[in-house]
Amino acid sequence: MRILVVNSNTTPSVTERIGAAARAMASPGTEILAVSAPFGLPLIVTRADWLVAGPATLAALADHRGSYDAAVIACFGDPGLDAAKELLEVPVLGISEAAFHAACMLGRRFGVVSFTAALRPMFEECLAHHGLTARCAGFRMGPAFSGDPGTVAEERLELLAGLCADSVEQDGAEAIILAGGPLAGLAPLLQPHVAVPLIDGTQAAVRLAEAMAGLVPRSPRSHRVRALTGFGPAVTSLYAAR
Amino acid sequence: MRILVVNSNTTPSVTERIGAAARAMASPGTEILAVSAPFGLPLIVTRADWLVAGPATLAALADHRGSYDAAVIACFGDPGLDAAKELLEVPVLGISEAAFHAACMLGRRFGVVSFTAALRPMFEECLAHHGLTARCAGFRMGPAFSGDPGTVAEERLELLAGLCADSVEQDGAEAIILAGGPLAGLAPLLQPHVAVPLIDGTQAAVRLAEAMAGLVPRSPRSHRVRALTGFGPAVTSLYAAR
Amino acid sequence: MRILVVNSNTTPSVTERIGAAARAMASPGTEILAVSAPFGLPLIVTRADWLVAGPATLAALADHRGSYDAAVIACFGDPGLDAAKELLEVPVLGISEAAFHAACMLGRRFGVVSFTAALRPMFEECLAHHGLTARCAGFRMGPAFSGDPGTVAEERLELLAGLCADSVEQDGAEAIILAGGPLAGLAPLLQPHVAVPLIDGTQAAVRLAEAMAGLVPRSPRSHRVRALTGFGPAVTSLYAAR
Amino acid sequence: MRILVVNSNTTPSVTERIGAAARAMASPGTEILAVSAPFGLPLIVTRADWLVAGPATLAALADHRGSYDAAVIACFGDPGLDAAKELLEVPVLGISEAAFHAACMLGRRFGVVSFTAALRPMFEECLAHHGLTARCAGFRMGPAFSGDPGTVAEERLELLAGLCADSVEQDGAEAIILAGGPLAGLAPLLQPHVAVPLIDGTQAAVRLAEAMAGLVPRSPRSHRVRALTGFGPAVTSLYAAR
Amino acid sequence: MRILVVNSNTTPSVTERIGAAARAMASPGTEILAVSAPFGLPLIVTRADWLVAGPATLAALADHRGSYDAAVIACFGDPGLDAAKELLEVPVLGISEAAFHAACMLGRRFGVVSFTAALRPMFEECLAHHGLTARCAGFRMGPAFSGDPGTVAEERLELLAGLCADSVEQDGAEAIILAGGPLAGLAPLLQPHVAVPLIDGTQAAVRLAEAMAGLVPRSPRSHRVRALTGFGPAVTSLYAAR
Amino acid sequence: MRILVVNSNTTPSVTERIGAAARAMASPGTEILAVSAPFGLPLIVTRADWLVAGPATLAALADHRGSYDAAVIACFGDPGLDAAKELLEVPVLGISEAAFHAACMLGRRFGVVSFTAALRPMFEECLAHHGLTARCAGFRMGPAFSGDPGTVAEERLELLAGLCADSVEQDGAEAIILAGGPLAGLAPLLQPHVAVPLIDGTQAAVRLAEAMAGLVPRSPRSHRVRALTGFGPAVTSLYAAR
Repeated sequence: MRILVVNSNTTPSVTERIGAAARAMASPGTEILAVSAPFGLPLIVTRADWLVAGPATLAALADHRGSYDAAVIACFGDPGLDAAKELLEVPVLGISEAAFHAACMLGRRFGVVSFTAALRPMFEECLAHHGLTARCAGFRMGPAFSGDPGTVAEERLELLAGLCADSVEQDGAEAIILAGGPLAGLAPLLQPHVAVPLIDGTQAAVRLAEAMAGLVPRSPRSHRVRALTGFGPAVTSLYAAR
Repeated sequence: MRILVVNSNTTPSVTERIGAAARAMASPGTEILAVSAPFGLPLIVTRADWLVAGPATLAALADHRGSYDAAVIACFGDPGLDAAKELLEVPVLGISEAAFHAACMLGRRFGVVSFTAALRPMFEECLAHHGLTARCAGFRMGPAFSGDPGTVAEERLELLAGLCADSVEQDGAEAIILAGGPLAGLAPLLQPHVAVPLIDGTQAAVRLAEAMAGLVPRSPRSHRVRALTGFGPAVTSLYAAR
Repeated sequence: MRILVVNSNTTPSVTERIGAAARAMASPGTEILAVSAPFGLPLIVTRADWLVAGPATLAALADHRGSYDAAVIACFGDPGLDAAKELLEVPVLGISEAAFHAACMLGRRFGVVSFTAALRPMFEECLAHHGLTARCAGFRMGPAFSGDPGTVAEERLELLAGLCADSVEQDGAEAIILAGGPLAGLAPLLQPHVAVPLIDGTQAAVRLAEAMAGLVPRSPRSHRVRALTGFGPAVTSLYAAR
Repeated sequence: MRILVVNSNTTPSVTERIGAAARAMASPGTEILAVSAPFGLPLIVTRADWLVAGPATLAALADHRGSYDAAVIACFGDPGLDAAKELLEVPVLGISEAAFHAACMLGRRFGVVSFTAALRPMFEECLAHHGLTARCAGFRMGPAFSGDPGTVAEERLELLAGLCADSVEQDGAEAIILAGGPLAGLAPLLQPHVAVPLIDGTQAAVRLAEAMAGLVPRSPRSHRVRALTGFGPAVTSLYAAR
Repeated sequence: MRILVVNSNTTPSVTERIGAAARAMASPGTEILAVSAPFGLPLIVTRADWLVAGPATLAALADHRGSYDAAVIACFGDPGLDAAKELLEVPVLGISEAAFHAACMLGRRFGVVSFTAALRPMFEECLAHHGLTARCAGFRMGPAFSGDPGTVAEERLELLAGLCADSVEQDGAEAIILAGGPLAGLAPLLQPHVAVPLIDGTQAAVRLAEAMAGLVPRSPRSHRVRALTGFGPAVTSLYAAR
Repeated sequence: MRILVVNSNTTPSVTERIGAAARAMASPGTEILAVSAPFGLPLIVTRADWLVAGPATLAALADHRGSYDAAVIACFGDPGLDAAKELLEVPVLGISEAAFHAACMLGRRFGVVSFTAALRPMFEECLAHHGLTARCAGFRMGPAFSGDPGTVAEERLELLAGLCADSVEQDGAEAIILAGGPLAGLAPLLQPHVAVPLIDGTQAAVRLAEAMAGLVPRSPRSHRVRALTGFGPAVTSLYAAR
């Protein structure tokens, strides 16, 4: 099986880290192809960023169309996800979507932990969009952060362990989602200090994409032909006849 | 005051009709500039369509930036709305958003009436996105329709009057939103047959845009500079320094 | 256009302050008539207070009936609002209702800031009544207050600026409602210190009342004749034949 | 124990029927005093009607203050209920509130059955106000009705039995609320034809008022003194010092 | 009238305390029979504990079947409640269910107070199951506790009084549920220090069970015969022909 | 990998059918062990049935403990699921839970189709328990059914195809869950007639159990030792020390 993992931003180092996390969790026999968005923004933060990241993500999915059995959109907020599910013949999962569903399957209540409260609004909206707000036991976030995202995971490891403990003991979390790009890959380091399973969105997405690809190999969804202008040929072809 | 009305699709005849409806409701002293999306699709129906209509709508807003005091996105589903509110210095309203808020200000419960049930899922999602599901008394939609959208309003006028009566008598609607592009401009014809106010989204948006432009003339919201690639210069400049 | 602004309590100094705020925001050509409730209570705080403030507000609306194009109920909690919308031929808006809808049109999430936590239950219930709880990013309220409401705005200006900053940075508010009568008129002083638009309920109500009066000049809602006893002639006539 | 049952409208024949239903269900040793509203409307239908029925109901409660251990507001929609709970020292229950809570204690899902769909909006709003929408399995209402409310129960008995059967078999109702004044007293006649318990609001309210009076004989709630004008001495005294 | 009170765990001292609280609130003429679960666990804390406590509670109800007019399940979380309502001919109430409904009948918003935050997840889930989350003004819980539950009520009396004050002043609670087994019987001691009614679940359940037994003496619900194996004869007979 | 599939009822023919469906979807290298509940009921229909099916399901899980990497509870309503997730060291999934999550990952809105409306209440409650009500586009169920469940799938094949078409065209479903035991295995026959993916709960559960077993091989959740009586040694050992 082949899974395309799309980093919705244009930063190659992030794509590499995401690809490594995906490969570490893929089943034997699953090949991971990790690509960056071909255009757009180096970092996706706000709703305005998501808007342009959507077509950029779709472009990556279109560029490699036909070469994968399932795809993962590796950007919290899942830009382009709903359109991709509609246009592509294979399952497409977002990493936030995957984290939420995996957490629900592990226990009744999940916590969300991250290093800075500034990310909370985005996570709340994403959770509401996926309809699972009622399953969330609460958010535990660190204070404002203005340092290097590349090293925040290590710098704030103790803080994060404490937030996870609060999530379990105060909020009753039975699984915890580590949220935010800079925490990717942190789960194995933190797990020994935490009493419930920790969930990494990219890794959950890879496992669930494998599952869905087997369950529904090719979507029978009907297709409407539309003449799109203003986007590149690959995206345009997604809207044209199959 | 000057209000830019953006038709999110690329069909000039629709833009003309929208512009006429907007002008009919604008206050004296308000000038309406109605424009089509500079690229994208001739008709916006599904989520995949909304995805590409978002940047196309943003492009129209960017192309005319600085020349208007408020803007209206005239496409049910409000593509690009959240990003536009974030990026623009002036109020931007969607026609579905405007219809929902206007209906709420007229009574506790509003009905939604349209000529075909096929539009219901889109309206339900849009209503949920704006958080006002609990204020809706119910949907009353006609059967499947495969004729000419340009004449459906006239052809189904009696049907629509009946649906409006059901909405008032069975569902307790105190205001009714006429939903769907092909019903634009129908409210004045239908109103004499209906016991509660009928709301046209474009016209509600024009009045509310005038109100908001006076209330908050220039948004003080802070701005983050981002290097966007893959879009035209006007959109790119929206993400760059102000 | 003429807008009647009803202060639901019987305190003339409050009516004057409300009238001044309304006039400051009214469009050229809009005349504001601000009146007190003709009977009732000098201050409206609890649900029991709202109950008697309802008919008192209705009495003010009835006393001046026929002389205004739209009306504003200027009391947080919107006493008498639902009945007024049903009985009057012109649009009637409450200031809390107006604040909530205006805030929604400015951004996805709004915060509510006030000087004392004691007001929170009332605001929460009012927000739930209008169905917009899901759009609220959170409340930020000061500690208990037992001083003079007439000067609390100035005394707690720094506190309020800090609460607004928290609302933006921690809760992700994109607009902030300044709630509570004693904060009326504070928005212009506080706005320079706050990164998102501040909303004053009375001023939002005036602008939105102007908008609604143009959109639906005279409500076609049908009317049932009822023989009311125990209230004055003006209120009684509202329930009688039009 | 003595329970005051207030008919919120001014029609003596309705008060008599309500009193009879209440007495039929009261425990031995419980005395029922049934009174009409001293002013207001002969029939309560809309929100505007509720507004004036609130102070009228409060007046009845105030007129007899000190002579009862608990009170019941016998009007669907529960006018004045929230204020009465705040102002009175003894438990006050509404008949719709009582019906909803009793139904919940009898099963997970309750149905609401009435003779005409015209009442549905009112019931839905009342249910939402009490926060129990999620426990309702659905509404089953008859068609429009323009006959004599005094005989509709008998005329539509078979229709109602059929609606109850649908509620049980299609909606999974485990208890059914017979809603609407004209159906008062119908439960015993209909029960033999229905497979789940039928609930009459007035009778549920009497039993639950007895229970609450024993549980919390005198409310310790603190009281704020207010100078009310424009209402009679009994209501005014409710707002003054205790 | 005879009410069976089932302690869902197997600890006799707890059964005695529950029985005493029940008798203290029962009406004259009501006899209380308090029994322990015949098997299961000495303490019920988690969802896994509830699972086995369900059949154990049902066994106690079955063992005494025919000898009581109503029953109370005296264990927060109400194990076996939904099944008991379905299988028994008489009303069965849980103490959490009773506390929530009683609190709602006393005021619009109730608070939940307990001695340790560790119980919060359980209370939240139970509240959600009964559908009344929207009526709860908030939780106020003490810090982690590792002492003797038998004396925590006395040890933390001042803490609890403070939490109640916060619930009233900060959250606007109009009634407070004292939650958690170790706080049973504490309400009379704490009430003099608290400005709103305090509710004890067991006592609320006894009063409401009396009310429901009078309202619906024998449930008419239809019954399906099933051949159960693996449980004792009393439980098995509940599933067999009546 | 080894997956235990537990049929929560005691009917061997059902266990065989479930096992066959599970094996048809399992990945190469996954072994399926399908077992019946060791005691309980031959058919699970109501909440009272779920109560006893819970410990029976737990007994099957306990009997085979240590021999599987993940488990599936193959009974709509997921009896014993929450307890099993808490007590077992490996992932346990219910088939309704799996169907809901799989459907969400395939599209924004899913429909639920079954052969008889009598199952609707159960499905609605199960959906609400899993928190995904907002993702459901609606139910489409056939009329009452009193024939042989073993052949209903074939008898009502055309009816079901029509219900699926309604779900897609009227409700906007983007995936459809075929609900109810008698429809197990029907998806492949029906899929050619339906424009969106059809989901079989057992098969979704097998795929998702494989995914979760890889993602979180052994739960780190802490364990409390409890002395259980009244159940067999295997269940008792689940509550004792690990």
